[in-house]
Amino acid sequence: MKQAQLECVKCGRIFSLDIINTRCPDCDEPLEVRYDLKSIPRDWFKTPKKGCFFERYAPFYSFLKANPALSLGEGQTSLLRSNRINEKIGLRDLFFKNETQNPTWTFKDRGTAFSIQNASSLGYRRFGTLSSGNMGASVAAFGSRARMDTFILLKANVPREKIDTLTVYGAKVIKVSGNYGDVYYKALEVGKHLDIYFSISDDPMRIEGYKSLAFEVYEQMEGQPPDYVAVPVGSGGLCRGVLKGFEELDEAGFIDKVPKFIGVQTQGCSPTVDAYEKGKDQIQYFKDALTLDHVLENPYPPSGNQVIRKMRSSGGVLLKVSNKEILDAELLLAEEGIFAQPASATGLAGLIRAVGKGLIPADSSIVTVVTGSGLKYPPVLKEFNLSSDSTSLDRLAHTLKALIK
Amino acid sequence: MKQAQLECVKCGRIFSLDIINTRCPDCDEPLEVRYDLKSIPRDWFKTPKKGCFFERYAPFYSFLKANPALSLGEGQTSLLRSNRINEKIGLRDLFFKNETQNPTWTFKDRGTAFSIQNASSLGYRRFGTLSSGNMGASVAAFGSRARMDTFILLKANVPREKIDTLTVYGAKVIKVSGNYGDVYYKALEVGKHLDIYFSISDDPMRIEGYKSLAFEVYEQMEGQPPDYVAVPVGSGGLCRGVLKGFEELDEAGFIDKVPKFIGVQTQGCSPTVDAYEKGKDQIQYFKDALTLDHVLENPYPPSGNQVIRKMRSSGGVLLKVSNKEILDAELLLAEEGIFAQPASATGLAGLIRAVGKGLIPADSSIVTVVTGSGLKYPPVLKEFNLSSDSTSLDRLAHTLKALIK
Repeated sequence: MKQAQLECVKCGRIFSLDIINTRCPDCDEPLEVRYDLKSIPRDWFKTPKKGCFFERYAPFYSFLKANPALSLGEGQTSLLRSNRINEKIGLRDLFFKNETQNPTWTFKDRGTAFSIQNASSLGYRRFGTLSSGNMGASVAAFGSRARMDTFILLKANVPREKIDTLTVYGAKVIKVSGNYGDVYYKALEVGKHLDIYFSISDDPMRIEGYKSLAFEVYEQMEGQPPDYVAVPVGSGGLCRGVLKGFEELDEAGFIDKVPKFIGVQTQGCSPTVDAYEKGKDQIQYFKDALTLDHVLENPYPPSGNQVIRKMRSSGGVLLKVSNKEILDAELLLAEEGIFAQPASATGLAGLIRAVGKGLIPADSSIVTVVTGSGLKYPPVLKEFNLSSDSTSLDRLAHTLKALIK
Repeated sequence: MKQAQLECVKCGRIFSLDIINTRCPDCDEPLEVRYDLKSIPRDWFKTPKKGCFFERYAPFYSFLKANPALSLGEGQTSLLRSNRINEKIGLRDLFFKNETQNPTWTFKDRGTAFSIQNASSLGYRRFGTLSSGNMGASVAAFGSRARMDTFILLKANVPREKIDTLTVYGAKVIKVSGNYGDVYYKALEVGKHLDIYFSISDDPMRIEGYKSLAFEVYEQMEGQPPDYVAVPVGSGGLCRGVLKGFEELDEAGFIDKVPKFIGVQTQGCSPTVDAYEKGKDQIQYFKDALTLDHVLENPYPPSGNQVIRKMRSSGGVLLKVSNKEILDAELLLAEEGIFAQPASATGLAGLIRAVGKGLIPADSSIVTVVTGSGLKYPPVLKEFNLSSDSTSLDRLAHTLKALIK
């Protein structure tokens, strides 16, 4: 059996599994876990499963001895079948993977859950990340759960209300002036010096956490994976992770065909799509990034180049959408019962655009990942100009009658 | 086999299963579903389960033909073992049932999910409720999902931001001036006239939804139910529903002992506890109700008298806690990784008070229900005076070092 190791996603250079916060020194590209998948029995998915994702899908996590006590009950989110949008845009089968049902209400929890397992098994007692939002909340929650001394680095201009939702978990929050790239590299350097495990977006163990989403979709669709998966692309970690999950299902012999991915960015921050569209291999720093809810506002995503390579080699699509398309998609999702962050509706917005461009056959089955809860960024609701009525008790019947469809 | 029917919880008068929005005309008390539980095979829980709760626990929902397409993936929430608070307060086994993982991030979804099944099977195409918050969001989401014309009645003073989170789902929101009790009775009257199914807090089908929480806890604890269950008490529906679930497990022969319930209100609105403590059977309208997040601010809870009767007959406890005790409990929960609404931390606050009064033996096992997400009411975070630090990039190492434990 081949021993588990880390490999550079670009040049394949090998690293030992116990190094952290490291990119390939030759390529400046992220590392990824490789291990033996051939020895999983063909009927393995038929066995009853319970517990956290790394227990449920144990053969896919065999390279790390994980401790269920550090889990917060992440994963096992719903897969909802669309009953309206699919008809509206002319698709047979559309499903929403509702990641807002995670413990801190975003998909980030899958990544953090496995990243902290690595930190703990390597003996770290200090944990942290750089994030203005979802990742910060997730790391703060899991860090506290594991009783680690937890540090969240933020951009200097993050508003107080958002900071409070991280400090409430007991994390130490530090606002740092400087651009994203500089803070990223500085944090890794300082982290090594002070023994802090920084669970950054391209931590290989975070990618391993995200791949659990693919296994759940495979089970929820009863062994028939979708033809396409549409995901928002910020740092690129989710896209890489879920694709890796399907690739592992393929490598282990459970599926014959890996779904094609539709990666979506917003026009307010599209470094990955821009490089892809220009036929380039290397993303450029995106100046003056500004998105509706700041969630996809990563101007220099650490997994950007790798997402481009993977989309090219796997027949996927990368595209960008406008704020209006995102808000339209958010309202469509809400009408089916899912209130998502704008960033989370970006996958659906991109799918709608791809369908409009004739890229997706009408008889395809598609899963779009709804990445985080609409409660995370309520100010954006103002964009919708939603209305409500007022009435006295006496006139209630009259008012209701006038509103009936 | 005994036919399923509705019974008055007080006098036992029988009603047919297809009437809605009705209380017993003799007692003005809520009705409850009764059906045959004796015919469930003893080894039934060992069979593999999947789908929504009414599919998973089908024998307990046999009286209604439910349609999984109306589900939003409610239930199947985590049961987390406490790793800190239990030690702090001197308890062996404390668990948190994390209802913030529901589709609209509160336990209300279980009730709405089953209530809308009833509406749909009776042919209703109009759905609604009265609520300033969690119930409104839940009804708005499920109503849209089922493509029903959906109406949410609110108190006149609910702020715009909160209203927007209901209208986003496509529901029609109407602010009504008048006190809670008057609006409640008027809505039922108008609803009958206009064929609107009002999914109010004491809808018997809502109680049936909440009971699924007990079945999940029973399974998650591997057939060993807890000695105590601590729940916040607003309208009283959650308390009634979860207790009914355990009573049905008992009646069907799966457990020998029904857990004792600890029902908790806040000092800002404690009509049920006040009547209970005075030895009365009948709650009084609570004047000038004001609670931290308005969630438990029901001045005349429709299930109040029934909660008092059940607590007395089952050896449970009803008590109230201060805002400070609730906020302390909210911070304790966050340190274990769960960011709850203040109302949701009320169950834990009451448990801590009950332990302090010597009411709970130290070797007990206890489940407390965390009812809704902290993201639902962020303004309350201001109460905590949480702090964060700032630094330049150059001084990052220095700043982190100073903060390390």
